[in-house]
Amino acid sequence: MATSSDNHVVCVPWSALIDLCVHVLRKMGLSEADACVVADVLLSADLRGIDSHGVARLGFYVEKLRQGVMIPSPAIRTVNETDVTALIDAGGGMGHPVSVRAMEKAIQKALDHGAGFVAVRNSNHYGIAGYYALMALEHDCIGISMTNSYPFVAPTFGRDAMLGTNPMAVAAPAGSERPFVLDMATSAVPFGKIEVYERQEKSLPPGWAIDERGRPTTDAGRVAEHLMDRAGGGLLPLGGAGEMLGGHKGYGLALLVDVLCGVLSGALYADRVYPQAPDGTFLPSGIGHFFGAWRVDAFRPLVGFTSAMDDLQRRLKTAPKAEGQRRIYVHGEKEFEEFELRAREGIPLNRKVLAELEKIADELDVGFNLPFL
Amino acid sequence: MATSSDNHVVCVPWSALIDLCVHVLRKMGLSEADACVVADVLLSADLRGIDSHGVARLGFYVEKLRQGVMIPSPAIRTVNETDVTALIDAGGGMGHPVSVRAMEKAIQKALDHGAGFVAVRNSNHYGIAGYYALMALEHDCIGISMTNSYPFVAPTFGRDAMLGTNPMAVAAPAGSERPFVLDMATSAVPFGKIEVYERQEKSLPPGWAIDERGRPTTDAGRVAEHLMDRAGGGLLPLGGAGEMLGGHKGYGLALLVDVLCGVLSGALYADRVYPQAPDGTFLPSGIGHFFGAWRVDAFRPLVGFTSAMDDLQRRLKTAPKAEGQRRIYVHGEKEFEEFELRAREGIPLNRKVLAELEKIADELDVGFNLPFL
Repeated sequence: MATSSDNHVVCVPWSALIDLCVHVLRKMGLSEADACVVADVLLSADLRGIDSHGVARLGFYVEKLRQGVMIPSPAIRTVNETDVTALIDAGGGMGHPVSVRAMEKAIQKALDHGAGFVAVRNSNHYGIAGYYALMALEHDCIGISMTNSYPFVAPTFGRDAMLGTNPMAVAAPAGSERPFVLDMATSAVPFGKIEVYERQEKSLPPGWAIDERGRPTTDAGRVAEHLMDRAGGGLLPLGGAGEMLGGHKGYGLALLVDVLCGVLSGALYADRVYPQAPDGTFLPSGIGHFFGAWRVDAFRPLVGFTSAMDDLQRRLKTAPKAEGQRRIYVHGEKEFEEFELRAREGIPLNRKVLAELEKIADELDVGFNLPFL
Repeated sequence: MATSSDNHVVCVPWSALIDLCVHVLRKMGLSEADACVVADVLLSADLRGIDSHGVARLGFYVEKLRQGVMIPSPAIRTVNETDVTALIDAGGGMGHPVSVRAMEKAIQKALDHGAGFVAVRNSNHYGIAGYYALMALEHDCIGISMTNSYPFVAPTFGRDAMLGTNPMAVAAPAGSERPFVLDMATSAVPFGKIEVYERQEKSLPPGWAIDERGRPTTDAGRVAEHLMDRAGGGLLPLGGAGEMLGGHKGYGLALLVDVLCGVLSGALYADRVYPQAPDGTFLPSGIGHFFGAWRVDAFRPLVGFTSAMDDLQRRLKTAPKAEGQRRIYVHGEKEFEEFELRAREGIPLNRKVLAELEKIADELDVGFNLPFL
């Protein structure tokens, strides 16, 4: 276990964090199988370098389970099913276990029929969108995954947050190159970036957020505070404010995700998600997800597809670079490289996150021994 | 027929333009049925206010048919088919007729099985992406349509155009509100916008394009000239240059469209599309498309879906506006309103476009009589 005291970061082996998550979630009432799924999704985020969606979120989940907003052992129910589609009610449980089941069902339908799509309603935060899309790869399928989420994003020409950062992910297999894995919020930046700037007391770059009057702002603290209170203002969609740089397109992508995840599933959508009761208590988030898979060889033989994917990626990576740039990335590359590094050297956690994990472990009387700290 | 000489625009009834297109395309060797399809797609663009993709393109198609780049009566062939997927070879013909057939097939599969997806290869420019997505609506399906295209867009950190503006369109039905119709290039702006700024001798807004060294530029003439010659520089993806405002996301969306349209279909992709022979002659564009449909009631009853779509749209449209703004749009609204206006009052054509249409009609000895001009 490496310690780097100058930037207050400690590297912790991923297996220790998996164990911690499983034990904590078991104590919160999840089954062994479900706890393992949630832990795997969280650690996949950490391993892939998406720190905002990893173990740093464990406290959030514990809080929601305590509040009864997330049900530890929900009654998951298939509401409707055809050969290639299904609708699943998540019973108000955590988003991860139902999402793995839904994606497995979509993949099985793709293997049997060429394509499969499963919508989920009455669910909660499901972690990184990419986790579920990636599941398709070992079956030689293209996978998609999307979810709606807490309203952080203002529509073009609006001043209040009405839509989630509504991420979408797509994964497609390659041959000797790495798979293509696009995993993106449909906003210019996710909410976590605003929090980082707030903590560092830095001004936001123009194009990320608007204030409660709908004017562009660089005030991270004000944006973050108002958003959590639903007091106006919001993140800007991909493309920024207005239509000049395509902000209406980012807004349209967020809306598309809401149509497939919220409306098609019968979940909540737009500013209806994460409702609060009149007495201020929290209600289940009521969000929805949408998963899909296409079997590559339902269209063309796999080897033709994967060799073309390799060629496409090489063309992009070897294309001439802009002045001052040394590398053109293909989506997923950075995360695969981070995975290899972190699987070997551990997950870098800052001391604040580590202290929070220790506090959770302590409160729940769960062992969390990091011998070399 | 209204004439407005001050801005050199003439309003022409859409029916006269349909007739002109059909007659011209018949003379170029298309069947009556195929000519009618192409004409309908072109006029749908004009009626919906997307002037860059309407009759103003007729000259481009005539030129490509003359060069032999587009085959007037291609051998369209279904290469591969399952219950819910198909791959079609367009035989090098115009993109529109094969795309209507492909989308009809996707819809029929959705009606029979819940979802349907059809990839097309060996095709050409197919007009507006939205036309095909819209076809799903009358069948109570959600429709998607996308295509790869001429390389105009530089990848993040690159300096050469490697990907098309690769548009994607999605249409979803509503109840008493209008359908949701997202139809967008995955670049910050389409190439046509650069041409408009060039003609008007205006500087480009920062965030639209880079020069041949990969530096942000506002020089419309230089960008347009270099792009047509493939001499470096290009449009920027949605989100602009670098990663600060999410340019890597727009680049990822363009790449996603290329994976589904180019790679999955076995078409050309990236900078391989629109190849030129060593002697400088033009070869078929070799592009691909991807179409899909989901039957709404394969997931949930239609009436629940359409009433939620209505509610979602009303929430957005009645949400508080940013300072100085009077309206929040839902995607498709502007185009439906333009359609109603233009169906009644005619298609506004500038005199340059009109002169070009008259020249085409004259050369092909096709009647184009506009009695009130």
